[in-house]
Amino acid sequence: MALFEKRTEFISPGVLAKVLYDFTAEPGNNELTVKEGELITIVNWAVGEGWCEAANGQGTTGLVPTDYVEVRISYHRYRCLASFPTACPARTTLPIRALACRDNRTQHPIQHCEGLSPDTKKFPTFSKHGPEVYLLSKLLPKTGEQLTIYKGQVGAVWNYPNSSLSCVVADPKKGSKLYGLKSYIEYQVTPNSTNRSVNHRYKHFDWLYERLLVKFGSAIPIPSLPDKQVTGRFEEEFIKMRMERLQGWMNRMCHHPVVSTSDLFQLFLTYRDEKEWKLGKRKAEKDDVVGVMIFGTVEPPAEDIDLLEAEQKVESISKFTKSMDDGVKELLNVGQEHWKRCTGALPKEYQKIGKALQNLSQVFTTSGYEGEAILTDALTEAGKTYEEIANLFEEQPKKDLHYLMETNQEYKGLLGCFPDIIGVHKSAIEKAKEGDKLVALNKITTQEKSTMVNRIGTMSYAFQAEMNHFHSNRIYDFNTVMHYYLQQQVEFYDTVR
Amino acid sequence: MALFEKRTEFISPGVLAKVLYDFTAEPGNNELTVKEGELITIVNWAVGEGWCEAANGQGTTGLVPTDYVEVRISYHRYRCLASFPTACPARTTLPIRALACRDNRTQHPIQHCEGLSPDTKKFPTFSKHGPEVYLLSKLLPKTGEQLTIYKGQVGAVWNYPNSSLSCVVADPKKGSKLYGLKSYIEYQVTPNSTNRSVNHRYKHFDWLYERLLVKFGSAIPIPSLPDKQVTGRFEEEFIKMRMERLQGWMNRMCHHPVVSTSDLFQLFLTYRDEKEWKLGKRKAEKDDVVGVMIFGTVEPPAEDIDLLEAEQKVESISKFTKSMDDGVKELLNVGQEHWKRCTGALPKEYQKIGKALQNLSQVFTTSGYEGEAILTDALTEAGKTYEEIANLFEEQPKKDLHYLMETNQEYKGLLGCFPDIIGVHKSAIEKAKEGDKLVALNKITTQEKSTMVNRIGTMSYAFQAEMNHFHSNRIYDFNTVMHYYLQQQVEFYDTVR
Repeated sequence: MALFEKRTEFISPGVLAKVLYDFTAEPGNNELTVKEGELITIVNWAVGEGWCEAANGQGTTGLVPTDYVEVRISYHRYRCLASFPTACPARTTLPIRALACRDNRTQHPIQHCEGLSPDTKKFPTFSKHGPEVYLLSKLLPKTGEQLTIYKGQVGAVWNYPNSSLSCVVADPKKGSKLYGLKSYIEYQVTPNSTNRSVNHRYKHFDWLYERLLVKFGSAIPIPSLPDKQVTGRFEEEFIKMRMERLQGWMNRMCHHPVVSTSDLFQLFLTYRDEKEWKLGKRKAEKDDVVGVMIFGTVEPPAEDIDLLEAEQKVESISKFTKSMDDGVKELLNVGQEHWKRCTGALPKEYQKIGKALQNLSQVFTTSGYEGEAILTDALTEAGKTYEEIANLFEEQPKKDLHYLMETNQEYKGLLGCFPDIIGVHKSAIEKAKEGDKLVALNKITTQEKSTMVNRIGTMSYAFQAEMNHFHSNRIYDFNTVMHYYLQQQVEFYDTVR
Repeated sequence: MALFEKRTEFISPGVLAKVLYDFTAEPGNNELTVKEGELITIVNWAVGEGWCEAANGQGTTGLVPTDYVEVRISYHRYRCLASFPTACPARTTLPIRALACRDNRTQHPIQHCEGLSPDTKKFPTFSKHGPEVYLLSKLLPKTGEQLTIYKGQVGAVWNYPNSSLSCVVADPKKGSKLYGLKSYIEYQVTPNSTNRSVNHRYKHFDWLYERLLVKFGSAIPIPSLPDKQVTGRFEEEFIKMRMERLQGWMNRMCHHPVVSTSDLFQLFLTYRDEKEWKLGKRKAEKDDVVGVMIFGTVEPPAEDIDLLEAEQKVESISKFTKSMDDGVKELLNVGQEHWKRCTGALPKEYQKIGKALQNLSQVFTTSGYEGEAILTDALTEAGKTYEEIANLFEEQPKKDLHYLMETNQEYKGLLGCFPDIIGVHKSAIEKAKEGDKLVALNKITTQEKSTMVNRIGTMSYAFQAEMNHFHSNRIYDFNTVMHYYLQQQVEFYDTVR
């Protein structure tokens, strides 16, 4: 089952790591002094003999023992085997700690999120205007926002920023206001761009999600936040799980070239004080380059794209995302079923067999017959081994299936955004197809009709760029998660035997 | 989990083997010419370089390629680790072929035998007389039958015959009588003592069982025959399964020093023609050394055993066999449950995961994105691997759990005989305890009372011999089956990974 080759030397340069223990450099040894809790950037993971090269916030580099460092993005141990557009920094974070579901230990926690598919949470602002607002707009926004697309190896691709943004969501702390009447959890968010932490409550993440959806939701899938649970939200397990899912969500946003470079997202990550935050919020809420108008900030393609071509492209994306949605949901269903069995009935059976063997061994010791010891020892030993296998089976899904489920869950969220996006594109194309009729009825000019067709071209171009981003991420994510899953399974069966 | 050491050199001398292909000895090479189908006896399994030493029916020995030989009793590969009374040839046969249950593939076939515990099948002759028939008998039978017991290392042990009896049940053939109106299956039974086959129908085995029960049932557990199924009894799977269970039953009888040397059993194995068989049957049915009278053929112990001691011994045997019965039934229950899961729900789930991964791979090939091949290949490969794991899980129980279940099933049968045996001993002791009262009432003489006590001593002595036989077999059987089971499990997990 060696589908992937394990290559620990391939932790990408630039990956953020957390220092676990204080380490004082020995002078003249090219070492770097680091403090517990400090965030550093890996420069070269595989210096050898247990050392890696890292950079601190001041840009000083030096050697640090790898054991002193926790690479939060454990996936990076496995280099993606797929070929990427050169500039694509697509990446997924795997939460390192295994999570157990509080309410029902035999269920993978994804079920808690069932009610949260994006279509249950529509924003009035999001679909207030039809596509003609953009298609027939006389003046496109001049806000300095400009979404650049260039023609890469795979076709249209977003312009990826030179340095890769990432952030760490950590240290959930209980806070309170109104003299202790209202409690909340505050998370520390640290981007690698500033290495400076900002604090955010869940409702701030929620605000960010809503604004991103309003602004980019016509062009880019903005997946829902993890479950907005009300009861039990101060339970440690829940807080951990939410934190790791917020981390996953933030990673996806950080790695999106359009989202990550937006004022909105930058505000969230880098505001300096309460005043700046409030001011930024107010400005964002007044922003009118939202919905279909976002296409007005996209640099138009060099060549024309005709309506038929645009229509066929939307159709094929629709078909693909629907099929993938079905596939992902199927995998989640069988995974959920398997999770239940592996953590429920199966280990219980192994335990029972173990107990039955040990009971029999106990009975045998009472026979009064000589030469019993070897057999009873063997039976007891076999019984204990079965109990160990029971535990291994019970713990295993948290070590591997969990990540396969989480990744598929993330994709279920992303794929749930496509029907809306596809709807926007389809109704825009329908509108443009009526162009000749509208000209005949004197409702629009020939010039306006031709502008509509051009703008459909721009929308199609943006959609291609987004799909290429989606595909490269998808290939990377599934490669890594499959690799990790199979690797863990091999280790599991090695342990069992 | 290496509880036992694999020692293939330890196929015991004396094990019967079947020649698979013709082999012609090269002159001067110390080889033995053998014919396909011939039964030979292993003298030394581990001559080396693929050769074993064997003896043919004429007593000629020589080398034969091990590959040309099928050791029917696969258990013998693993030498028993328990210490035996030197003369004990205790042995269990494991059917080599795996069996599937026709009616419900997710159930281990043991359930078909549920209705067949010995207590549902009482014989009137068996408990017609109370123990006083023997205890107060003036003249003990003088039939030439004499059951010798000697004091071995572990206490009283039966006198084991010098050469170990075994037989092969094979080649089930359909026969008919009454001009084809009645069909039946005839099995070929070949004992190693004559190397000559006799044919027997299931009803002959049943006759043998009934007669053994009548004759020895007060002193020796005679387990029931495998299920007497009426419908579907000509189905190939059923015939195979029945044959293997008949083989197991015959092995147990062959290895019992009292049963195997009895005229009854010898008649069954070695009759020369129909006339001899019918004559022998009539004689056996007229035999009146049955039930408690069998103790009249037992050589009395050298020392007296007092009533209290005899009573305590019966009590402790009763306790042990009851606990073991519970333990064995528990193991059968959890094993049955595990069998269902391993052959039903679990592989279905692995299949589903495999299918889900392959579906996703199929969807991904339609993306039109470059660099997809490595991922889709990996997903398809992983999907196929899961389907293979599904098959492995499904087939595994037939390779290991099956034998653990069969052995425990055999012991369930044996243990089911003990309540009757214990009942005989207890009521005999009760009778003897009334001795003084009976003397006072002038119902028996002092001489008769003392004879009763002596005869209780003989019964107790015989019971000890039987228990020592039981224990040594038990230790051997459980050691081998556990060893085999764990060995198979290790190989299983090796294959999965």
